[in-house]
Amino acid sequence: MSDTTERGRRMSEELNPGMEAALDARYGHLLPGMAEGVVDFAYGRQYGRPGLALRDRYIATIAALTALGGQTRPQLKVNIAGGRKAGLSREEIAETIWQMSLYGGFPAAINALNAALEVFEEEDQNAQS
Amino acid sequence: MSDTTERGRRMSEELNPGMEAALDARYGHLLPGMAEGVVDFAYGRQYGRPGLALRDRYIATIAALTALGGQTRPQLKVNIAGGRKAGLSREEIAETIWQMSLYGGFPAAINALNAALEVFEEEDQNAQS
Amino acid sequence: MSDTTERGRRMSEELNPGMEAALDARYGHLLPGMAEGVVDFAYGRQYGRPGLALRDRYIATIAALTALGGQTRPQLKVNIAGGRKAGLSREEIAETIWQMSLYGGFPAAINALNAALEVFEEEDQNAQS
Amino acid sequence: MSDTTERGRRMSEELNPGMEAALDARYGHLLPGMAEGVVDFAYGRQYGRPGLALRDRYIATIAALTALGGQTRPQLKVNIAGGRKAGLSREEIAETIWQMSLYGGFPAAINALNAALEVFEEEDQNAQS
Amino acid sequence: MSDTTERGRRMSEELNPGMEAALDARYGHLLPGMAEGVVDFAYGRQYGRPGLALRDRYIATIAALTALGGQTRPQLKVNIAGGRKAGLSREEIAETIWQMSLYGGFPAAINALNAALEVFEEEDQNAQS
Amino acid sequence: MSDTTERGRRMSEELNPGMEAALDARYGHLLPGMAEGVVDFAYGRQYGRPGLALRDRYIATIAALTALGGQTRPQLKVNIAGGRKAGLSREEIAETIWQMSLYGGFPAAINALNAALEVFEEEDQNAQS
Repeated sequence: MSDTTERGRRMSEELNPGMEAALDARYGHLLPGMAEGVVDFAYGRQYGRPGLALRDRYIATIAALTALGGQTRPQLKVNIAGGRKAGLSREEIAETIWQMSLYGGFPAAINALNAALEVFEEEDQNAQS
Repeated sequence: MSDTTERGRRMSEELNPGMEAALDARYGHLLPGMAEGVVDFAYGRQYGRPGLALRDRYIATIAALTALGGQTRPQLKVNIAGGRKAGLSREEIAETIWQMSLYGGFPAAINALNAALEVFEEEDQNAQS
Repeated sequence: MSDTTERGRRMSEELNPGMEAALDARYGHLLPGMAEGVVDFAYGRQYGRPGLALRDRYIATIAALTALGGQTRPQLKVNIAGGRKAGLSREEIAETIWQMSLYGGFPAAINALNAALEVFEEEDQNAQS
Repeated sequence: MSDTTERGRRMSEELNPGMEAALDARYGHLLPGMAEGVVDFAYGRQYGRPGLALRDRYIATIAALTALGGQTRPQLKVNIAGGRKAGLSREEIAETIWQMSLYGGFPAAINALNAALEVFEEEDQNAQS
Repeated sequence: MSDTTERGRRMSEELNPGMEAALDARYGHLLPGMAEGVVDFAYGRQYGRPGLALRDRYIATIAALTALGGQTRPQLKVNIAGGRKAGLSREEIAETIWQMSLYGGFPAAINALNAALEVFEEEDQNAQS
Repeated sequence: MSDTTERGRRMSEELNPGMEAALDARYGHLLPGMAEGVVDFAYGRQYGRPGLALRDRYIATIAALTALGGQTRPQLKVNIAGGRKAGLSREEIAETIWQMSLYGGFPAAINALNAALEVFEEEDQNAQS
């Protein structure tokens, strides 16, 4: 196993426990090795790189998924939740999204705010239970 | 003059001196009030908001313009330069851009890295002169 | 209150009664002032500008949201309904959308036609009741 | 009736029986002639052209709809099913989609894989019944 | 020759004299019949349809090409010039474009305004000569 | 060195000799390891996968880059040239691109045809010299 795969696996298990196994269970029969590729590239060679704090990486991702529009909504929600764990406040996330009205337009920004509200409501529900 | 316009004007003059006058000179005969609108909305009601540090706002913008692709290249260069003034290191900017290969694809990320290299070269040239 | 905010508020209340209050109720705790910013910029400084008839502004918006694709569907429906109130016939709206097959592709045009049909059905239901 | 319309109609009836009549029933009251236009242009003047095998045309379409993102999901599913009929294996379709992570980003590729899985499940259900 | 091709050819020759021949000269060796297809579909079956005034069709097209971003710049310039011939004032074109800051973001709107200024300058130069 | 990196390096050196070294020379001071990541992921874990012929992979890529629009022009030209080496005829490439008028719109398809013509002219020039 290469160093980047190892680093990616450690990080992915910390941020999204069980993700690699879930990807492999769902897509592995069609795309053998795909789950490992995601772990190696997305985590080992991107999120796990030094040079930019994890919190900052989430700002970048939330901004981009907002600007790209609603088709990335499931991933947007995952990354908003990830950004919360990496230390972003709700306000910082809302500001990141709303600023995107300048670049991706108002509909994209409003749709992403709705995704954020859903994540925050789930947080509140989990906190109560 | 409203509070947001005033706040926007102060900020815009600090970050991009002369921008409002330049917009008005170029587009004002067709779109009266447009320059003030940019200042009020983009600076007074977005970049000038509390709740997210200016440095972080530039990470968000650089990420989004990268993911949206090459048609925003002039604005990408302006914001890379702005991010440098707001405290982002070259490495942080490069990492922000490269991470976008995950969301906007490799061509978008490579094209944005090229824009960043141009900005950094201009910095070096200005430093020498 | 600035002139543009006042103009925007008059217009927004006429076209979408209660929108500003609804935005503030939903997003204001995270983004104070955001609702006023939408009113000021989108209505006071864009839709409320002289120089292009309101009916024509809706043609532009429906065309753009169609070409940008399905992630703007909620906004597309709002603007199709708005265009109807501003004087566009169903046929004009359908033609505007279908022409977009040339620029945004057939899937985008078909998806937007479906959104228009939903708006027209709601009109028919409201007319009957 | 022109040659291209005739060729398009033959092809469209073979690949999507009843499509022209369905388009006309749904949209024809607003857009007379639209259904014939789709048949003539999309089938008679595009899919029906010599110079590229039908199987290869489906690879191109599946790739493009994946990269364009989730707003084309209904059309993506139709074309994945079409590609299967034109001879593409499930593996070839999955590979075509996954390769798009390089150009349209990971969220777009994952969303399209989910669409493919839905089509394959429908195939399995039809095979059992 | 079908009715739609004939109608499209009349319209295309009026709006863009020589376009079909130019397309055929440039692309016909690779794509026989492509030029006729553009004439038939884009003009005969879209721009030439009744139900929406030509002037309004140009508003729709200019709006969409603005929102789609700078990669459509050559086509945007052609359609701005076409819109002028169909009766749109410079102000109406600028307003159409600037309104797109709400949907396609500020960079897209500014880039399209620059394209419009180029078209208007060419008009002024032609008027002087 | 991992298996995928090794497979990617063999393939990348065959298809684009010197690419890894060029990426490293240009971006490596800002993004150490980025060139290896491209080789490992894009070639070792995507283009080098079994399950879809290389020629078919180029159809997919050319289609996607066409539909995504002009901002990917440099990459489109590289992949058109790559597709030629992998066995695609000029006609097949032109057909792949032109079919995208259905999904990415006419401007995107025309712009990509122009990129293809440039590649074909370069081929002719190289053949003559």
